[in-house]
Amino acid sequence: MNKFNPLLYLVTDRGLAKGRPIENIVEQAVNGGVTMVQLREKDCTTLEFVNLAVRLKKILAPFQVPLIINDRLDVALAADADGLHIGQQDMPYVIARKLLGKNKIIGFSVENIAQAREANKMDVDYIGLSPVFVTGTKPELMNALGLEGIREIASFSKHCMVAIGGINARNAGDVLQAGANGLAVVSAIVSADDPMMAAREIRQEIDKFIKT
Amino acid sequence: MNKFNPLLYLVTDRGLAKGRPIENIVEQAVNGGVTMVQLREKDCTTLEFVNLAVRLKKILAPFQVPLIINDRLDVALAADADGLHIGQQDMPYVIARKLLGKNKIIGFSVENIAQAREANKMDVDYIGLSPVFVTGTKPELMNALGLEGIREIASFSKHCMVAIGGINARNAGDVLQAGANGLAVVSAIVSADDPMMAAREIRQEIDKFIKT
Repeated sequence: MNKFNPLLYLVTDRGLAKGRPIENIVEQAVNGGVTMVQLREKDCTTLEFVNLAVRLKKILAPFQVPLIINDRLDVALAADADGLHIGQQDMPYVIARKLLGKNKIIGFSVENIAQAREANKMDVDYIGLSPVFVTGTKPELMNALGLEGIREIASFSKHCMVAIGGINARNAGDVLQAGANGLAVVSAIVSADDPMMAAREIRQEIDKFIKT
Repeated sequence: MNKFNPLLYLVTDRGLAKGRPIENIVEQAVNGGVTMVQLREKDCTTLEFVNLAVRLKKILAPFQVPLIINDRLDVALAADADGLHIGQQDMPYVIARKLLGKNKIIGFSVENIAQAREANKMDVDYIGLSPVFVTGTKPELMNALGLEGIREIASFSKHCMVAIGGINARNAGDVLQAGANGLAVVSAIVSADDPMMAAREIRQEIDKFIKT
């Protein structure tokens, strides 16, 4: 099993960055306590995606914060990223593992209880539970798992569980209490006026929970 | 240098297939004389792209017709395709070669004389000259190379040259005469009522030219 700290997992979305360079937001967020970063880009060329991944890897290296690429195994390989996050409609897990090798982190999105049970058959490094709460980032996912869903999946899943969807400083403790091992955040950091402060606030809530 | 026959190179576009499964069109086209197939998909999930590539590879294997994947090195690896076609905004060539190895075919699009000169520094397996004529398939490329452009690039390029853009049975001979080593075709086959017959007609023109 690959080692990583999933506590506060930033997932990028340039569309929510209010025109600011995503590199700056990532760097500020890491300074605020983000422990892991996922680069998620849907509307750019492969060349832009690779170049952005290479730049982020350089920014993250001194912090020893892993860079995970969403969906695109080619970009992960090209940038020698630390891992890949795949969804239900992405590269099949078995192929991704074969191509990336055992030393890369692979995360897998599950959107309901049945998918979480299915994921128990795979040796993924973590599962992303999505969405915990309904959010504007992925309006197509209407059925939120809720805290109840997190609790249920936590009762049987063998995997490290990262929750995503509508998570912020106010509900962070509740989501961890329900069983999540880490919190993935998009808009609460990417859209924040001060991404470092936004990350720090969520991180403080996480640290408060861990200490109790 | 990898061996392949570039004479009649089918490039897919599901949007032009008039609702017919692209697998059927490819199989008919290969029966009509297509020597190489490029799977080009812009609007589908990675899973769909991989599954389609795997199906096409099975269809093409008995014909010994190579399957080339457009842009997506991850899909090429996942399906163990015969090669990758990259454009100016795709994966950098040096990285693609490193990840694919020397035994896979790599093609590279050039859209003007300067890019063709630049390509002479790379050990790509072929260059795609695009567009020869202005076409509806890629309306963003307004400056066609024309037969004159093909002739000029042929005068200095060290690469196998495949021409693409507006090629059909009527102009096939002219494009080969100008110096192209192969003809890439999209709509003249994909949109044809009878893709096998459409491929056969172009192939006959090619064979006529070769014999002269």
